[in-house]
Amino acid sequence: MELAGVADVAATSLVNVAQKRSYAIFAANDDAADAMRKAGLTLAGNLTDGLRSADLVVDTSPKGITARNAEMYRSLNVPFIVNGGEEHELTGHSFSALANYRETLSKQAVRVVSCNTTALCRVVTALKRSSVGIADIFATIIRRAADPVRTKSGPVNAIVPVLGGLSHHAPDVLTVIPDIPIASLAAVVSSTLSHVHMVRIQFKAPVDRDTLLRSFKSTPRIVLVSGERGIVDNAHVLELHRDLLRPRGDMWEVAIWEDSVYVEGNMAVLSYCVHMESIAVPENVDAIRAMLELERDPGISIRRTDEALGCYREDADYGSL
Amino acid sequence: MELAGVADVAATSLVNVAQKRSYAIFAANDDAADAMRKAGLTLAGNLTDGLRSADLVVDTSPKGITARNAEMYRSLNVPFIVNGGEEHELTGHSFSALANYRETLSKQAVRVVSCNTTALCRVVTALKRSSVGIADIFATIIRRAADPVRTKSGPVNAIVPVLGGLSHHAPDVLTVIPDIPIASLAAVVSSTLSHVHMVRIQFKAPVDRDTLLRSFKSTPRIVLVSGERGIVDNAHVLELHRDLLRPRGDMWEVAIWEDSVYVEGNMAVLSYCVHMESIAVPENVDAIRAMLELERDPGISIRRTDEALGCYREDADYGSL
Repeated sequence: MELAGVADVAATSLVNVAQKRSYAIFAANDDAADAMRKAGLTLAGNLTDGLRSADLVVDTSPKGITARNAEMYRSLNVPFIVNGGEEHELTGHSFSALANYRETLSKQAVRVVSCNTTALCRVVTALKRSSVGIADIFATIIRRAADPVRTKSGPVNAIVPVLGGLSHHAPDVLTVIPDIPIASLAAVVSSTLSHVHMVRIQFKAPVDRDTLLRSFKSTPRIVLVSGERGIVDNAHVLELHRDLLRPRGDMWEVAIWEDSVYVEGNMAVLSYCVHMESIAVPENVDAIRAMLELERDPGISIRRTDEALGCYREDADYGSL
Repeated sequence: MELAGVADVAATSLVNVAQKRSYAIFAANDDAADAMRKAGLTLAGNLTDGLRSADLVVDTSPKGITARNAEMYRSLNVPFIVNGGEEHELTGHSFSALANYRETLSKQAVRVVSCNTTALCRVVTALKRSSVGIADIFATIIRRAADPVRTKSGPVNAIVPVLGGLSHHAPDVLTVIPDIPIASLAAVVSSTLSHVHMVRIQFKAPVDRDTLLRSFKSTPRIVLVSGERGIVDNAHVLELHRDLLRPRGDMWEVAIWEDSVYVEGNMAVLSYCVHMESIAVPENVDAIRAMLELERDPGISIRRTDEALGCYREDADYGSL
C-alpha cells in the first residue's frame, strides 16, 4: 500500500510536515493552490490530479465538506472512505474491522465509524466471543473535552451531559453490528487525553470473569492494563504508550482496565480508555484492503495492519475473525 | 434550633469567620487551646465544655478522628451525627430525610449519608413515587476531582475510573433504602464544581415521561433545570444558584436536567447535578430534628428546614413523605 499524496486547502504546518516526509501534496481547490505555492510548497497538482493517481481516497474533511466531496468521488468513480463524524447514509455502509470486514469487500463507499463506536464495536465483538448470550449492554461514554491542540474548546472546569435522551453511540454501533441490545449515555469532561467508557453488560446466563478476560486477551486491538500495576487513569494509559515509543504517542488499541472487569452472576462491568486521535487508524487501513479486495480474509488483513503499525500481539487470535 | 458552638483544632480562617459571626468557639483538644488563644480567638472552653452545653453534636472531622470522637460522645451520652465518609457500622443507622426519617426518631447515633448517596436516595424516593415497580437501576457517578479549595488535589487533565468492581455508592443507598435493585460505577474527572450522575432505570412495566417528571416535580429537594433554556452543564447549574443569591452559592437540591429525562418502553434515563459541598446540609438539620424528636412528621420537618434555608417549593408535596 502506498500513500499517493495528501490534499489540503492551506499551507498548514501539518502539510509542511507531509512535504518534508516526501509525500506528494495536492491543492484541494484552485484558490488554495496559489497561496500554497507562495507559502513555499511544491504542489503535485490539484485534487483531481491526486484522485487520478489514487485507487481510493480517505476523506477527513470537516463535516459538510465531506458530503460535497463524496459527490465528486462518485462522479469520478473513485472509491472513498469517510470518517465517523459523517452520517451512515452518506455511504450506506459503516465499518469496523473486527465486526464486518467481509461485508465490506468491494464496496465503493465506506464510513469508518468514530473512535467511540470503534471501541464499542471491538468490545462487543470480544463479548460475543465469550459465547454467553448478551441480554443488555449499557455504556456511559465519558468524552474528552477536545483533542489536545483544540485549545479554543472547553470545558476547562465542567461536566457537560449530552441532553435530549440517549447518546448516538449505541445506535451507531447498530450500523455495524445490527443484532445487539445496547444503549448509551454520554457526558463531556475537562480532559484532552482520551475518552473513557464505563460499561455494564447483562448476560443471558451467568458468566465468569476468567472467560471474559480470555475473550479480551484473545481479541486483536484490545489490550489489558492494570490499575494495580500503576495504570490508574487515562493519563497513565497514554503515558505508557509514549514510553512504548509509539509514534505520536498513539494508542490504536482499546485499553481495558483488567481490574475494572467485575462479574456478579449474569452481570459484568468494565471500563476502558479510547484514544480518539488514533484508534480508527488501523480500521482505515483495513477498510482500504477490504474495499480494493487486496485481501479477502479479515484476520490476515487485521494481522498485516497490526504488524505494520507495531501493535501485533502474539497471544491474540487473528484466525477466527 | 440554636448552634451551641464550633470546635476545631486550630485558628483557621474558617474558625475566625465563625467567631466573627458570634458563635462560641471551643478548642477540640488542650494542645490546640493555647495556640488558638495566641492567634487571637476567644475560646468558650474545650470540646467537653462544648458538649455539655449541647443537646447533640455533628461531627465533621476527618476519617479516623470521627471514630475516636464517637467513643467520647457515647461515654458522655451525647447524641451524635457523623457524615458520609464514615462507615455505616460506626452508628448502625444511616439517614436520608426523604427516605427514612421515621426510623431515625430518637436514635442516639446517626450517619447522614454522603453527597452522592443523598442524591441517589432522593432520586430513588421520587422514582418510587411514580408507582411503577423498579426492576433495575444502574448509575454512573462522574465525580468532581476535589472541592474548589482543595488545590493540591487532582486530576487536572485526566479521567480516573474507580477500579476493583462496582462503586460503593449503590451499596451505600441500600443502608437507607434496603429493598432497591441498584448498582453503580464511578470515575473522577477534572472538575471542581459538582458531581454529575447518569442513571438508567428499567421499570417492571412501561412508564411515561410525564409521570416521571411529575414525580420529580412533586418531590422536595429536587429541582428541574433545562438545557434548552441554557443550563447545559454543571457550571451553568451552579452559576444559576449564585445568581439566585444562595449563601455561598450552595445548592441543597438535586438538579435534574429536564431534557435528560428520556423514556423508551420500560426504560428511562436521566442526568443530574450534585453539589457535594451543600446537598447534605438540610439532611443534617432533619437528622437533628428526628433524633431529638423535635418533630415526628418527616414532611413537617423537611418543609421547616427548606423554609429556613430558602429552598421551600410550593409545588412540592411535603404531605406524603
